[in-house]
Amino acid sequence: MHPQRRYTLTAACPDRVGIVARVATFIADNRGWILETSHHADSDTEHYFMRIEIKADSLPFDLTEFRRRFRPIADEFAMDSRITDSAVKKRVVVLVSKQEHCLYDLLARWQSKELEIDIPCVISNHNDFRGFVEWHGIPFHHVPVTAENKSAAYAEVTRLFEEAQGDVMVLARYMQVLSPDLCARYPGRIINIHHSFLPSFVGAKPYHQAYQRGVKLIGATCHYVTAELDAGPIIEQDTVRIDHGDTVEDLVRYGKDIEKAVLARGLRYHVEDRVLLNGNRTVVFR
Amino acid sequence: MHPQRRYTLTAACPDRVGIVARVATFIADNRGWILETSHHADSDTEHYFMRIEIKADSLPFDLTEFRRRFRPIADEFAMDSRITDSAVKKRVVVLVSKQEHCLYDLLARWQSKELEIDIPCVISNHNDFRGFVEWHGIPFHHVPVTAENKSAAYAEVTRLFEEAQGDVMVLARYMQVLSPDLCARYPGRIINIHHSFLPSFVGAKPYHQAYQRGVKLIGATCHYVTAELDAGPIIEQDTVRIDHGDTVEDLVRYGKDIEKAVLARGLRYHVEDRVLLNGNRTVVFR
Amino acid sequence: MHPQRRYTLTAACPDRVGIVARVATFIADNRGWILETSHHADSDTEHYFMRIEIKADSLPFDLTEFRRRFRPIADEFAMDSRITDSAVKKRVVVLVSKQEHCLYDLLARWQSKELEIDIPCVISNHNDFRGFVEWHGIPFHHVPVTAENKSAAYAEVTRLFEEAQGDVMVLARYMQVLSPDLCARYPGRIINIHHSFLPSFVGAKPYHQAYQRGVKLIGATCHYVTAELDAGPIIEQDTVRIDHGDTVEDLVRYGKDIEKAVLARGLRYHVEDRVLLNGNRTVVFR
Amino acid sequence: MHPQRRYTLTAACPDRVGIVARVATFIADNRGWILETSHHADSDTEHYFMRIEIKADSLPFDLTEFRRRFRPIADEFAMDSRITDSAVKKRVVVLVSKQEHCLYDLLARWQSKELEIDIPCVISNHNDFRGFVEWHGIPFHHVPVTAENKSAAYAEVTRLFEEAQGDVMVLARYMQVLSPDLCARYPGRIINIHHSFLPSFVGAKPYHQAYQRGVKLIGATCHYVTAELDAGPIIEQDTVRIDHGDTVEDLVRYGKDIEKAVLARGLRYHVEDRVLLNGNRTVVFR
Repeated sequence: MHPQRRYTLTAACPDRVGIVARVATFIADNRGWILETSHHADSDTEHYFMRIEIKADSLPFDLTEFRRRFRPIADEFAMDSRITDSAVKKRVVVLVSKQEHCLYDLLARWQSKELEIDIPCVISNHNDFRGFVEWHGIPFHHVPVTAENKSAAYAEVTRLFEEAQGDVMVLARYMQVLSPDLCARYPGRIINIHHSFLPSFVGAKPYHQAYQRGVKLIGATCHYVTAELDAGPIIEQDTVRIDHGDTVEDLVRYGKDIEKAVLARGLRYHVEDRVLLNGNRTVVFR
Repeated sequence: MHPQRRYTLTAACPDRVGIVARVATFIADNRGWILETSHHADSDTEHYFMRIEIKADSLPFDLTEFRRRFRPIADEFAMDSRITDSAVKKRVVVLVSKQEHCLYDLLARWQSKELEIDIPCVISNHNDFRGFVEWHGIPFHHVPVTAENKSAAYAEVTRLFEEAQGDVMVLARYMQVLSPDLCARYPGRIINIHHSFLPSFVGAKPYHQAYQRGVKLIGATCHYVTAELDAGPIIEQDTVRIDHGDTVEDLVRYGKDIEKAVLARGLRYHVEDRVLLNGNRTVVFR
Repeated sequence: MHPQRRYTLTAACPDRVGIVARVATFIADNRGWILETSHHADSDTEHYFMRIEIKADSLPFDLTEFRRRFRPIADEFAMDSRITDSAVKKRVVVLVSKQEHCLYDLLARWQSKELEIDIPCVISNHNDFRGFVEWHGIPFHHVPVTAENKSAAYAEVTRLFEEAQGDVMVLARYMQVLSPDLCARYPGRIINIHHSFLPSFVGAKPYHQAYQRGVKLIGATCHYVTAELDAGPIIEQDTVRIDHGDTVEDLVRYGKDIEKAVLARGLRYHVEDRVLLNGNRTVVFR
Repeated sequence: MHPQRRYTLTAACPDRVGIVARVATFIADNRGWILETSHHADSDTEHYFMRIEIKADSLPFDLTEFRRRFRPIADEFAMDSRITDSAVKKRVVVLVSKQEHCLYDLLARWQSKELEIDIPCVISNHNDFRGFVEWHGIPFHHVPVTAENKSAAYAEVTRLFEEAQGDVMVLARYMQVLSPDLCARYPGRIINIHHSFLPSFVGAKPYHQAYQRGVKLIGATCHYVTAELDAGPIIEQDTVRIDHGDTVEDLVRYGKDIEKAVLARGLRYHVEDRVLLNGNRTVVFR
C-alpha cells in the first residue's frame, strides 16, 4: 500500500547490456526517487522485464511529459513500455452470475479501499444481485444470455464495457463462455477465475472431475482470457488440502475460499501493473 | 454438507473399554444410520471424545426422546454429552467495529447458505455498518463503548445477546476487550479472531510486532474467549508468507485474508458441533 | 508414533446399519483397548471403511486367534478385512535410479526408526549408490534395464522382490516404466512418486511441461502403480509456490523437496495400514 | 541454478537518488551482462539494499580488479558492499548432535551438487555419525561438551572452524547453546535451525510447549545466532498443520520435515549471498 502518489513504469524488451543503466540514469537525472523496482531476465525468450515505482512529486514533470521524455529510450531498446499514475484508478467492470462469494469479496475490498479501483458497473446474466450491487451505489446491468442471443448479448456486454470506459473486465464466476471475438478484442484485459488448478480439469464441473480422480488437493486459477478455453496466461494459483471424507459439495465450499482469494490477488497484481505478458506465460512482480 | 436432516451426538468421558460398543449398539438397536463418526482417545488426559452424525429419519423417535433414552448411557460412562438437530440452526450474534472484511465474509456465507446459521442481530460500537447490515434484513444495534461506560455497555451487549437467544457470540474484529464477567458467563460460546499466530504477539498491534521481529510468515487464530486475554482454547489457525518488501500495511492486508478464512472455518466447526473442549485445548473433528 | 505393540484392523464393506456396533462389541467383549479408530462412509459407492488400533496386550489372544475369531464378522458383513501386528515390520524394497534425494531421505527415516520398516534390499538400474546403500548394511542389486532386456530385467526384479519377501515396492524416482505384467502382479503394493501434481503433466519431463504452461505452483504425487501410466490411485500430494524467476532447474530443485516429503508421507500411511482402496480412489486415515 | 560462472554484488546503504543509476552505469560501461537483480528500499530504516548477479566472462577484469574498481562507488554512497565469485564455494562447517535428519538432508544436497558448497568438516558432541560422515570423505571431529568443559569445548570448536577456514557454521540440530563469545565472534556467520515458529516457544522443548498450548500448526525457524537465545535475525520459516490426534512424538516427526526444509532453504539463501542484514531483520532476495 502506497499512501503517496507514484508513477509506475513497466517495460519489456529484448535483453542486452545497458538497459537498467539507461533507464535508471534517466530517472536519476530527473531526481526521481525510486520506491520499488523489480527486474527479470528471461533466459528462455531472451527478454528483459522491469517495473519501477517512482514518487510522483520527486519528478519535475507530469505524466504526459514523463511519457514524452521516456519515448526515445523506449524506442532505442524496442521496449513495450507503459507509464501509469496511481492517482488514476483503474476502472474494473465485474461480470457475475448466481454465486456471490467473489462479488461480496471484491466489493468488501473496494469498499475498504484495500483495492484501489473504480467499479463503474456490474453486469450479470441474472438479476439476483441487483439490490446488493445498487445498495453500494454501483450501476447494475442485467444482460441475459441464452443459446439463441449470444451474439447480441456479447455485443451488449461490449457496449456497456466501452460506455463504462472499462480498463479491465473481471469474470467473477461468470458462468458463460465469452465469444472468441470478445476475447480477441481485449487481450490481457479480461481476467477469469477458474475453479481448478489448471491445466488439470479444464472445462465444465472441475470439482466433480477432481472428486472422481481422487486428488488430495484442489485449486483455483486466475488467468487472462484468450479464445482458447482455460488456456490463457496464468496470473495466480493456489491449492487447498481435501481428503476422502469430503464430498463434491465440500470441494465446492473449500474451493470458493481459494477462488475469491486467488481472484483478489490476481486482480490486485493487474491493477497495480505488476503483471507483464511473456508469450503465454506471465511475469508477476509481487 | 448434508442436505439430509441429521442428529449429531458429541460426548467426552474418561476413557475405558466398551464406550464405542455401548453407544454404537444403542444406535444400531434403534436402526440408526450413521453418516459420519469421529473418535479421539487423548492419552494425556485419558479422556475419550466422540462425535456421531445419524440420519434423523432412520431413528424411530424425535430429539427429545433420543436425549431421554441416551441419558442412562451418558450417566453410566460419566459423559459430558450433547445431541443436536441439524434442522435447528444455531443463532450467531456478530460483534463488529470498523473493519468490514469479516462481516462481509460472514454475511456472504450466510446469504449463500454455505454457513447454515441464523444471525438474529449484529452489535457494533460504531454505526458504520448499519445500512449494510439492515439491507440484509438483519437488526443492527449500536452500543458505543467508552472508557467510562464499559460496565453498562457490556450489560447491554449481554441483554441483546439474551434477547436474541444467541447460541454463540462472534467477535468479527471487534476491537474492544470484553469484561471478565462477560467472558466467564459464556464459556465456549464466545469466538474471537485474533490477528496473529498465537501465542506469538499477544495483545495490541500484532502486525506491528510481527514486522519488528522480522518473521517470514504471519498468521491468525480463532479461539474461544476466556478471561485471560488471547489465551483461550484455539479452534483454528493459519499462516501466510510475507517477505522483507512487505510493509506493516501489507501485513494488515494479507492478514485480513487469513483472518476471515480462519474465522469462517472456526465458526463452521463450532456450529456443526465439531469442537470439543479438552482443558485449554480443543478436539476438532473436521 | 506408538511405542506400545498394537493390532490394526482395517475393513471395507457395503454400508448398512450395525457395522460399528458389531465390531466394537466384539472388541469390547474381549476387553480390547481401542487406541485409535477412524471411519468413513462413502455415499458415492455406499461402502463403509474403518481402521481400528487395539493395544495388543489388552486382548486375551494372539494375532492368529484374533484373525480366526474375527472371520465370522467379516463374512457376515462381506468385509474385505485385514489384521496386522505392529511388531511385524513391513518389508520395503526400494527401487532407485540416479537421483539420491528420495533414497537418502528414506534411509534417514529408516535409520532413525521414524519409519518402522525393514529394507531387505535396494534395486537399481545403475550402480551409483551401491557403496552408500551397502554402508548401511543393506544389500544392493544392480539390474540394468535396456530397450532389449526389459522382459528379463523385470523378471529379475520380481525374483529379487519375492526372494526378499517384500511387502511393498517403492519406486523412489526409479526412471523406468514397469511392465504391465509386473504392475498387475502387485496391485496396491507398488508405490511411485511422480514429479507433478497429477493429473497435470502425465508422462515425461513434467517440470518442463509445468514451466512451459507457466503454472504458479508445482507439485508431486505419491500413488499406487497400475498398468495405466500415472493413473493409479493417489495416496498423497502436495504443491509448492514458484514464480517467473524460476528456471526449469529451479523447478527440479524445489520439486525434489516435495517429492521426498510426499513419498515419505505416502509410504508411512501405507505401512501403517492407513490406506484403503476405494475403486481408483483412496481412503487415507491419517 | 546457474551453470555459468558469475559475480554477485550485494550492497546496503542509506537511500538516496541515483544509487541504481550509478551502479548500473558502472556495470554497463564495462559491458557487464546482468543475470539477476533485486532491490529493496526500506522506508523504515531509509536504507537501500541491492543484489546483482553478473556473468563473470562478460566483464573485462577479474574479481580483485572488480572489487578495486567498485570501491569508489561504495565509498561515495557509504555502502556496506561485497562481491563474490560463484567459482569459489563457501566452506560450511556442520555441527550436529544425535539427530540425523538435517545431516542426511544436507549431505544429500551437497552430494547431488544441489547445494554448491564445500563441507570441510563435521563437528559433533557425540560420536554417532562418525562412520556416516567419514564414508562421504568428510573429516569428523568429536568435541564432547559437558557442564564443566564448555569453555574448552567451544575454544576447540572455534579452532577447528578456523583451521577449516570455514565461512559459515551450521547448527544442524546441535543441542548445545553456544557461548556468547563464540556467537559474538561470528556475527551473521552462524546459522541455527530452531524447532518452533519463533518468537513462539523460545528455549527448550518447543514441541512440548506447542502441544500444551494446543496450537493447530507447528513451525521451524532458520536464523542467525546472536548472544541472545533464539532472538537473532530470522532468515526463513515455515509451518505445518497438526491436529488434536497428534502426540508430542508426532509433532517431533512432522517438525523434522520442516526443520530440514527450512534449514536447507536458509542455508542456500546464505551461501548464494541472498541474505542481507537490516538491523535484527533480514532482507532475503529469493
